[in-house]
Amino acid sequence: MVEVGIIGGSGYTGGELLRLLAGHSGVEVACVTSRAHEGRPVHSVHPNLRRVLNLKFEAPDYERVAERCDLVFCATPHGVSMQIVPLLLESGARVIDLSGDFRFSDASVYERYYGMKHSAPDIKGVYGLPELHRKKIKRAKLVANPGCYPTAVILGIVPLLTAKVIDPTFIVADAKSGISGAGHRPREATHFPNAAESVLAYKMARHQHLPEIEQELQRFSSELRMSFVPHIVPVIRGLTATIHFQLTRSMSQEDVRELYREYYGGEPFVRVLDAGEVPRLSAVRGSNFVDIGAFSVDDERDRVVVVSAIDNLVKGASGQAVQNMNIMLGFREDEGLRSIAIHP
Amino acid sequence: MVEVGIIGGSGYTGGELLRLLAGHSGVEVACVTSRAHEGRPVHSVHPNLRRVLNLKFEAPDYERVAERCDLVFCATPHGVSMQIVPLLLESGARVIDLSGDFRFSDASVYERYYGMKHSAPDIKGVYGLPELHRKKIKRAKLVANPGCYPTAVILGIVPLLTAKVIDPTFIVADAKSGISGAGHRPREATHFPNAAESVLAYKMARHQHLPEIEQELQRFSSELRMSFVPHIVPVIRGLTATIHFQLTRSMSQEDVRELYREYYGGEPFVRVLDAGEVPRLSAVRGSNFVDIGAFSVDDERDRVVVVSAIDNLVKGASGQAVQNMNIMLGFREDEGLRSIAIHP
Amino acid sequence: MVEVGIIGGSGYTGGELLRLLAGHSGVEVACVTSRAHEGRPVHSVHPNLRRVLNLKFEAPDYERVAERCDLVFCATPHGVSMQIVPLLLESGARVIDLSGDFRFSDASVYERYYGMKHSAPDIKGVYGLPELHRKKIKRAKLVANPGCYPTAVILGIVPLLTAKVIDPTFIVADAKSGISGAGHRPREATHFPNAAESVLAYKMARHQHLPEIEQELQRFSSELRMSFVPHIVPVIRGLTATIHFQLTRSMSQEDVRELYREYYGGEPFVRVLDAGEVPRLSAVRGSNFVDIGAFSVDDERDRVVVVSAIDNLVKGASGQAVQNMNIMLGFREDEGLRSIAIHP
Amino acid sequence: MVEVGIIGGSGYTGGELLRLLAGHSGVEVACVTSRAHEGRPVHSVHPNLRRVLNLKFEAPDYERVAERCDLVFCATPHGVSMQIVPLLLESGARVIDLSGDFRFSDASVYERYYGMKHSAPDIKGVYGLPELHRKKIKRAKLVANPGCYPTAVILGIVPLLTAKVIDPTFIVADAKSGISGAGHRPREATHFPNAAESVLAYKMARHQHLPEIEQELQRFSSELRMSFVPHIVPVIRGLTATIHFQLTRSMSQEDVRELYREYYGGEPFVRVLDAGEVPRLSAVRGSNFVDIGAFSVDDERDRVVVVSAIDNLVKGASGQAVQNMNIMLGFREDEGLRSIAIHP
Repeated sequence: MVEVGIIGGSGYTGGELLRLLAGHSGVEVACVTSRAHEGRPVHSVHPNLRRVLNLKFEAPDYERVAERCDLVFCATPHGVSMQIVPLLLESGARVIDLSGDFRFSDASVYERYYGMKHSAPDIKGVYGLPELHRKKIKRAKLVANPGCYPTAVILGIVPLLTAKVIDPTFIVADAKSGISGAGHRPREATHFPNAAESVLAYKMARHQHLPEIEQELQRFSSELRMSFVPHIVPVIRGLTATIHFQLTRSMSQEDVRELYREYYGGEPFVRVLDAGEVPRLSAVRGSNFVDIGAFSVDDERDRVVVVSAIDNLVKGASGQAVQNMNIMLGFREDEGLRSIAIHP
Repeated sequence: MVEVGIIGGSGYTGGELLRLLAGHSGVEVACVTSRAHEGRPVHSVHPNLRRVLNLKFEAPDYERVAERCDLVFCATPHGVSMQIVPLLLESGARVIDLSGDFRFSDASVYERYYGMKHSAPDIKGVYGLPELHRKKIKRAKLVANPGCYPTAVILGIVPLLTAKVIDPTFIVADAKSGISGAGHRPREATHFPNAAESVLAYKMARHQHLPEIEQELQRFSSELRMSFVPHIVPVIRGLTATIHFQLTRSMSQEDVRELYREYYGGEPFVRVLDAGEVPRLSAVRGSNFVDIGAFSVDDERDRVVVVSAIDNLVKGASGQAVQNMNIMLGFREDEGLRSIAIHP
Repeated sequence: MVEVGIIGGSGYTGGELLRLLAGHSGVEVACVTSRAHEGRPVHSVHPNLRRVLNLKFEAPDYERVAERCDLVFCATPHGVSMQIVPLLLESGARVIDLSGDFRFSDASVYERYYGMKHSAPDIKGVYGLPELHRKKIKRAKLVANPGCYPTAVILGIVPLLTAKVIDPTFIVADAKSGISGAGHRPREATHFPNAAESVLAYKMARHQHLPEIEQELQRFSSELRMSFVPHIVPVIRGLTATIHFQLTRSMSQEDVRELYREYYGGEPFVRVLDAGEVPRLSAVRGSNFVDIGAFSVDDERDRVVVVSAIDNLVKGASGQAVQNMNIMLGFREDEGLRSIAIHP
Repeated sequence: MVEVGIIGGSGYTGGELLRLLAGHSGVEVACVTSRAHEGRPVHSVHPNLRRVLNLKFEAPDYERVAERCDLVFCATPHGVSMQIVPLLLESGARVIDLSGDFRFSDASVYERYYGMKHSAPDIKGVYGLPELHRKKIKRAKLVANPGCYPTAVILGIVPLLTAKVIDPTFIVADAKSGISGAGHRPREATHFPNAAESVLAYKMARHQHLPEIEQELQRFSSELRMSFVPHIVPVIRGLTATIHFQLTRSMSQEDVRELYREYYGGEPFVRVLDAGEVPRLSAVRGSNFVDIGAFSVDDERDRVVVVSAIDNLVKGASGQAVQNMNIMLGFREDEGLRSIAIHP
């Protein structure tokens, strides 16, 4: 068994890492840290793990963690990861960081959108989207696990973009996320009477995931310009992106669908729906799949709409991190990730 | 007291008409029809009206209704209204029809998007959006009350469109509606285990409200081409549209906001929020207001985002119908429409 | 116009007082205080009041408030009201306090259940449940507005209890409240991912509303002993109590219903449903009604079940406070309280 | 691999059987029937199974099913199972029936509460609650899988009842179920605008699960008399029962907790929480656990409250069926049932 560690195990992504790794046949969680919950069993915070995992939160001692573990997940917030990751790397551990701190090749973009100075601008992670960077991930010392929105949006755009059948200056991704995406800490916007019976657009035109999406997509087309607006919807888990394109040549729904089917041919976690089928959150809830569908063509206006859906805490965070770990450590890519979505 | 009637009073828009008219000082509901509930008190279907309104559903006898009433609301589904409205008009009543049947100047557009033959293609309604057509509404015999999506989308677009500061071929309206918009009849998509914890894009590129939006907006710019995708979100009431534009000249958030403020200066039901404020459904729930805000400018990409929000059953249906009635009958435009939104 | 004031106007009950009083023909809100929001318009906190009420929050200066206002609502938390109410009474204002501080005739009961010392144990309020104490309320200097659970539970029990047809030692009230009952401040339990898709029993056997219920009901039967368990359910507004009784003599559903109908004969806000009908939250949402129904008799086991439902922020708080104000000031009891529930 | 079949695989319990059995190492689903969906892949109805299970619905041919399968699950509605089960048993298959048809030792009780004639009153199933009847289940030809409410209620009562420390004539079980419990077919009560923001008591004093609960509990105390009221709450999955007891002798919270801990000592799926901890639906969602907790003692009134929680589709239906299958076929009792609950 390979020993792995989790820094910052009391949040939602930490809990989800524990849930998934508990069912992994090749790794063992050697330690999970939480300053606030030190000494308490993990089920005191993650009640689903009662009797499933007999682990206690430890105080974060990065050197010791790196010593005991071959690979460490940092499930810490941005701004915190940039302090911890350098220490872990120095101690020789391989690291998967779930924050935004190491996703940008250009630290000044990070600093503009995250609104803080980067304390380790020279350390670069491999962007951990297996569908685009599998080979680099395999050898990486540091994987920067993608954001939830970028995962759904990028995977929904790449096939049409690389096929060069759309206008790269007219792409609008309108995304809707479940509220677990805002983390486990209560806030105004997540207070039930505010969040229920509500749809809230936020950080329009300045969300930190916008430049992350552009960075990845501009590899395929330097002209690309995105509109991206995230929304909070009254859903616990799940994230869906409706992506509006301008076609530059005439295509049928089936043509578009075929394009996606070919692009994602061998991918273990991308399911391309039949033309006209629309992704549903219950089909991905709790699982690592990304479902892509709709492919709705408007002939009169030369437009096409693609919809993608993920569980924001799984393919959008911890599941993708485990997928990256599997690639890095040479496991089957779906090991620990076979739990089926909960429908309804 | 002016006597008014409601044809098809057992659905959500019928119930909402009854709720609003119960508080109107100048009109009295003389009759409300429902084939299925004939003889039963209105509160057997609309439990909020118990002890508030002592009315019983009657069988639909259009001639008698038209005789007794000066104005008749048709809260019947599309395809049904086109049968009834001609009879009512012939009997001399003024009519406000809440279906889509009389909204199109070109019946062939109707037939393409609604998928049925129009049986009265020569009868035309005045499009009942007071902010655009107040004068014509005043004199109309037949008002075609707008759809819920078009109300939110059109009002969110017109000021920027008429100011000629955006590209009319790049407008994307991504809308999210509460489930009451689907009517009171249980269906697969409205079954709680399907609808809760879910976001569902539907009728992409072929929703019947798309040509309705274009018809109204092309009055201002014939080049206009819309992308419009509606979604169902797990909300009972409320509808919000996030509208993405491409700016053709540089503007600040405050500039954009000012443009809306001026355009809607004297409007009793349009509230233009401060720049950066985002409309919330609880601010309009149960009320006839439309809130418009965000005005978020992305300088790097020359994009701007506007968000509008309404209660789909009030400003998106019955409240707007009462507003139209007030204009037609010479009442204060907000009579019967002063009930304040329920927040939270 | 009578001038009234609100101390603590930024919470949910403060907002609801403002919503209801904005439609009251006989009073005017002369001032509303909030330390945290001083100087800001009320719609910055209560977005439904935008353009409806042009008021700004003031700093709390109790003496000045009492001077300007004939009647003052204290919408402050328990423990705070006991500091403020004595000052207001001294200054000559009549007061309606929405906290639990002045509801108990025996201060030691208060201290046991609220876990704090009472700083004004000699000041007693009239318990503001009009259906039981209308006459005393009329003359009261200080009305202690009832808790939300007690309102629904007491009104659901009194008719059967006074008829002496049930065992007063076997009454179980199992209540479910919407989450707005927990106030506007975000907390663990109200964080959407915790509160949605959840039902949570809390403060079993030690909720502070249990002795409040018993105090009122023991006036009718000194032997009475309650079981009371409150639950949080994923609902914004609304509270329902399912009350289980042991019958001491045989009765039909219709008998039980008749008993309630007679007891509440002239009450403006109590609606007794037909036998078998079950109260629905949408029938009371936003309105001051309490609906009582079910009356389900189990012949085999001599049990009967009664269900009552209110909007916790209206009849369970601010609506009842306005009803009390109307009684105190000689207005029609339903003045300002005619807004109809929002269904669906 | 043992081959098993599912009759009626298109409903929620059918889908859940497929989800669980897909991860079972010792059995294979040889066939799943659905008249309405014959020939279509299972993922057309259960979208979470896309790419997970390559099975198609077959037309129901009971003889063939019984021939090919060693064990058959009947996930058919009550009234239908009684027609099918006799045929399956005759053909030699062992059967687990998820309907209520074979749960009653006295067919007249069935007929009174289900309102229909029983066509096979002489066939008796073993009541499939492993915690009470494990030995009989092992040898059973026909297991009658318990109802969802009875599972949560019975397991919440038995320890206190068998300890003889409560009054068996004063037990009130007030239960709240997620809406998936009502099945997959859209109905008035499950229509989102009716079901959201709502709590609905139903079938008070006459729910068919009441006599089922009494039948099992009267084995321990013939005097036992239940009050049982089920409610629908706006939750997809999950069921919780709050059970109110009258203590006949003084006990502490810890005493009560200890009693449950001992009673359920070796049980693989019963988790007894620490005294004061309250079961949460997210801790059981998607898993086969039943969580029991609260144990709240009210000293002044000699009352105690116990709360139990399950996933109504897992421990309340299909998970329990798989647990019964494991017992019947000699597998580890948790085989196929190790998927961890989804929290949040």
